[in-house]
Parts: sequence; structure tokens; C-alpha cells
Amino acid sequence: PMFRHYMHIYLLPLSVDPASTVSGLLSIFHEQELTETIHDTDGHGYLATFVGKNGRFVVLRVHSQGLVTVDLQFYEDDDIAQLDNLLNALENKLKVLLNGNITRIKKLPALLRGAKVDRYWPTADGRLIEYDIDKVVYEEDSEYQNIKILHSQQYGNILVLDGDVNLAESDSAYTQAITGSGKENYAGKEVLILGGGDGGILAELVKQKPKMITMVEISFTDFYIDQKVIDGCKKYMRKTCGDILDNLKGDCYQILVQDCVPLLKKYVQEGRTFDYVINDLTAIPISTSPEEDSTWEFLRLILDLSIKVLHPSGKYFTQGNSANLTEALNLFEERLGRLSCPVDFRKEVVCVPSYLEQWVFYTAWKK
Amino acid sequence: PMFRHYMHIYLLPLSVDPASTVSGLLSIFHEQELTETIHDTDGHGYLATFVGKNGRFVVLRVHSQGLVTVDLQFYEDDDIAQLDNLLNALENKLKVLLNGNITRIKKLPALLRGAKVDRYWPTADGRLIEYDIDKVVYEEDSEYQNIKILHSQQYGNILVLDGDVNLAESDSAYTQAITGSGKENYAGKEVLILGGGDGGILAELVKQKPKMITMVEISFTDFYIDQKVIDGCKKYMRKTCGDILDNLKGDCYQILVQDCVPLLKKYVQEGRTFDYVINDLTAIPISTSPEEDSTWEFLRLILDLSIKVLHPSGKYFTQGNSANLTEALNLFEERLGRLSCPVDFRKEVVCVPSYLEQWVFYTAWKK
Repeated sequence: PMFRHYMHIYLLPLSVDPASTVSGLLSIFHEQELTETIHDTDGHGYLATFVGKNGRFVVLRVHSQGLVTVDLQFYEDDDIAQLDNLLNALENKLKVLLNGNITRIKKLPALLRGAKVDRYWPTADGRLIEYDIDKVVYEEDSEYQNIKILHSQQYGNILVLDGDVNLAESDSAYTQAITGSGKENYAGKEVLILGGGDGGILAELVKQKPKMITMVEISFTDFYIDQKVIDGCKKYMRKTCGDILDNLKGDCYQILVQDCVPLLKKYVQEGRTFDYVINDLTAIPISTSPEEDSTWEFLRLILDLSIKVLHPSGKYFTQGNSANLTEALNLFEERLGRLSCPVDFRKEVVCVPSYLEQWVFYTAWKK
Repeated sequence: PMFRHYMHIYLLPLSVDPASTVSGLLSIFHEQELTETIHDTDGHGYLATFVGKNGRFVVLRVHSQGLVTVDLQFYEDDDIAQLDNLLNALENKLKVLLNGNITRIKKLPALLRGAKVDRYWPTADGRLIEYDIDKVVYEEDSEYQNIKILHSQQYGNILVLDGDVNLAESDSAYTQAITGSGKENYAGKEVLILGGGDGGILAELVKQKPKMITMVEISFTDFYIDQKVIDGCKKYMRKTCGDILDNLKGDCYQILVQDCVPLLKKYVQEGRTFDYVINDLTAIPISTSPEEDSTWEFLRLILDLSIKVLHPSGKYFTQGNSANLTEALNLFEERLGRLSCPVDFRKEVVCVPSYLEQWVFYTAWKK
């Protein structure tokens, strides 16, 4: 039962008496056969609700300082034109009552609530974003997470893990950034990828004829190399992964669906090193209380092991997080400065199309 | 009087009786001293509103098919922790009542309504977007339009004309795309820019030592070369325009604050041509009824005149619109195919950081 929720805001001049203005509006609601209830707000402005046919529902509030808000909810199968008319009539009446003297009018695009295909996926910095999503093309619950692949007209298919937008087919800028922005030569190199279950990085790097790429993960907080993620991506994210996920093993790559921590520890013991380590695991935790958040502990462990298996002249690439999460990014940089094996680093801010926020990437190397 | 508006959605299994579930929730509201009103919806589900102290207001609806929506509004100076507790208590109670058996839970980031600094600016394709705007740095009403420059942490200052996001300091990708994506050589060339009042294109091109750049506009539907736009940009968009707008005239450029149509007609009469014509006027109209929309008429006039003053080996660059507005884009392409002077064209889809949607750019040249 999807419904639309319109939100309109009017700012009236402070000289206007809101109470008398509101009484002038009521006739509009009555004409539309909406039944009103006036609520006692104990001095917090005027608040009336109106219920009409087909489950129509309106909230009219007059707050202090001339702020008037109108909320209108109605079901998808209702007569939109009639309801648009109601809102237009309200606005016109308000203009007449105030001789056109309204300080500000703001109408938000209607919220689509209760829809089968959810269009609202917040950014990492917690902002409300409506995507142009029109279809769920894949949905599975694995033992680790909820996996969705959603279709967007402009971004192509989008992989969403537990409600987080991970990568869309439009996002080659992400793959580009986390592999060194086109300035590296992977030919004949040993590469370790942690995460990257969408196959984008792998598909891009095998073109460059590396010696061997090992891709691994599933560990603790990260489940990108989840067989069900791979299954979904190889079917619905082919603009990203091509055919690389059709086989877990190829001439110059292997995908290991297993915990990376014991493997990394084994590599450290054996003294094995990689020319490139690409950490495509979870973004830096948003929590800035690392002592209370085990994700930070995990991140430090992975970081430490990754740098240990990095060849002295090698490079370590990783994503950071939203450029707006400055505290979390600072904390991460501080961590980078305190590794058992000292590193230098640089960062880059990149526009990844489907993220709808600027994203930070890091490159680190041994001092 | 800014207030927050939380929207939570719960989807209950169809086997659950919503009425008995709701009655189990009421105690939570009563504990928080919220006074309820139950509304008669004439068979369209359960609808209750609750009013509490400090102007707190809750709408609880149980729609058909197990959809439950909770709206909570409260003023900025209220006790957020207490209200978060209320919502958590509701959710926990619901989980207990249903033995954890909730099909879907979705909580949108709180809407900030009635704030002095508006964070909601829709995309060209009409989606709701919350920007990270924290300050209005410039606001003027000129005789043509409302001009705002808003500060965003991640995008820098953003120029907003009559509510449309025009360009942010982060958007060199826009300037890059509309000047030929770095593949052109402007040295010694004659350039005509229509619009571009933020100075971004001009600042970029003067670096390349063109023979002469003429920048002009103000006409009918387009007011980008509005002295008040220039005044705002030269002060607050310096990452975009540098010092180029400090003077309307320089060694190799002139900015003409006048109507471009008579000027273009004069150029046509004189047989004057340009190596590059960059049309940075309004985006293609969203309306797809060109016969009813004079903006299309204007667009065709400008297009026709622009191609007439284009040197036979010259290039014409322009923005299109959101990649999602396929009908409008098709209409524009059809127009391109019917000019008095035949042209070929190509298009490119570009991610302009602050636009939060993919944007189409066109290059056209004489056949």
C-alpha cells in the first residue's frame, strides 16, 4: 500500500496573525470533505489534522515565527490531480489572504512511502537521498548479510549490502581510484585484494597481465567475498565484473572464499610479499570511539598484516570513507601513523557516481 | 522554529492482526504523556495521532498488508535522546509482541523542517536530496531571480539560482566537460561563451591564451550573466572563477552584461564567426511539450544563431540535462537534427559532483 507524502512549507511575514489566516484556509478542506480535528498543543502553535475519503490525511501546523507546514498523505491509487488541486487551492488562498506576501514557499518532492522497491538509501554521512531505483533485480539473505542488487536508470545495477550502497555499474571511478588512478603498472606483479566481491577490481587488473592476483576476505566484520554476493554480481553486475566471476580461478587469479586473517598470518610467517595490496574491505568505521568499537580493532589488525605482507617497494591502496566524516578519517590517519611497520601515505577525494557524496581514498607505502 | 521529522516503517507478516498489535503499543505513548486521538478512516486502516509536551506530535498508522508507519515531529530544542528512546521503546515492544518476526524495518534520516538554512534541493529529475549545507554565504534578489550561494562541507560553495543548483566549487568536471574534456586547444582561438556567470569556463580558458573570449547572455529565460550573480561569484566562488570576474574586461576577454540575441544577430549579419561557441545557458527544458513551452522556442533560436556564428571547422559545446530526462534529451537531439545549418553531434555522460545525478553534455559541429 504505497502512499505519497507531500510536505509543503510556507513562511509568513511576522506581522501576520497566523490564527486568522488558518481559519481562512479551513473552507478549502471542508470543500474537499476532509473532517478536521483540532489538537491542544499547550501553547505550541496551531495543530489540526484532517481525514478524508480513500485514507487521505492532512496535518496543518502553524508553528511560531510564521512557519506553516502542510503534510498530505494519500494512497498511490488515489486521484493525484485532485490532491494537487487541493494543495494549489491552499496555496492560492494563502496568497490571497496575505496579498501575495509570503516570505518563503518550499515544496519537497513527494516522499514515496511503503513502496515495494525502496528508493531511500542514506549516505555514509547520514543524509536522506532518493535514488532513481525502479526494480529489485536480486535479493538474498546469506548467513552473513542481506544482499540486494537494485536497478537505477542512471547508475545501472547497484549492489547494496545490509542497506549500504556498495558499488554500481556506473562506478568505474571507484575501481580506478582504488587501483592507483591509472598510474600503476600491474604487468607481472603479485597482487592481493581483500574484499572486492563485485569483481570490478579483479576484472580491471587481469587485463594488465599481472603474475598472480589473490582475492580473499570473509572475516569478522567483512563479508564481501560471500558466495551469494559473487552469485548476484556475476549475474547482474556484468558491466562491472565482466565474466571474471564466472570462475573462481583463472590463469592469473584465484578467489578464495575463506577467512583472510589466518591466510595473512601464514603469508607473514612464510615471508611472502605482494607488490600491491588492495584493501577493498569495509569503509572506515563511522564510530569515533575506537576503544568501544571492535571494527576499529579489526581494521588495525588487517592494516598491520597487510603492510607486513607488502613488498618494501610495494603500494597499499584502500578506500577511506565519506569526505565529510573528518573525525573518522583523522582517526584512521592517526592509526596509519602508529603501525608496527612505519608508512607514509597520501589521500585523494574522488566522485564515485552512485555514492552521492565525495569519497576519500588512501595510498600507503613503507618508509 | 526548526523541527525534526522522523519516519519509521515496519512491515509485519500478513499473519499478524495489526489491531491487537497497535493496542499493545499504546502504553508506550501513554508513559510518555502523549494524548491520543483515534481517527475514523472509513475502512482505510488504523490512524491515531498523539500530542505531547513541547509540541511533540506523533502519527501512527496501520495500513493494509501489514504496513505500519510512525511519524514523529519535535522541535530542535527538545530532548532528542528522550525521543530516540520513545522510538526505540516502540520498536522493541513491537519486536516483543511479534516475537522478533518483523518483515522489514526502515528508518529514514530525520527530515529537518523549517530550518533557516534549507538542505533540500531536488535534482533535475525531481528526486528528494538532502545536501550537507550549513550556511548561506550570499543571498540577493536581482530583477531576474533569487541568487543564493550556499556552503557545503564537501562541495565548497554552491551557486543556486531560483532554487536550482547551478555549480559548486567542487565541479571542475562540469567546466572540463563543457570545454571539450581537455582535448581542445584554445590558444589563439576566438571563443564565444553564452552564460557562464560563475566564471568557471572563462577562468579555465584564459589560461590557454585564446585570441579573444566574448562572454554574454541575459535573455528571455536566461540570467546567468546577471551583475548580482557575478558579484556573488567573484566573492564566494573563487575556487571556480579565481580573479577573472574582478574585471569585466581583460587582455583576451570581455564580459558583456547585455542581451545576447541582438548581439548574435549582429554577428550573423557581419559574417563574424567563432572557433568555439560554448552554450552554458539553461539546461534543456524539462517540459516535453515544446509547442506549449516558450523555453524550447528560445533554445532553438539560440541554437540556430550559435551554429550560424560557428566557424565551419568550429565546435559547439553545451550541457544537456539529467541523463534520466530521456524524453527531453531526445527532443533536443531531434531539434539538433533540424537546424537550418546541418550539424552532427555526440554526447557524453559526466558525473558532476554536486549535481547528484549523471549529466549529459553535447558537442556539435557543422556537417
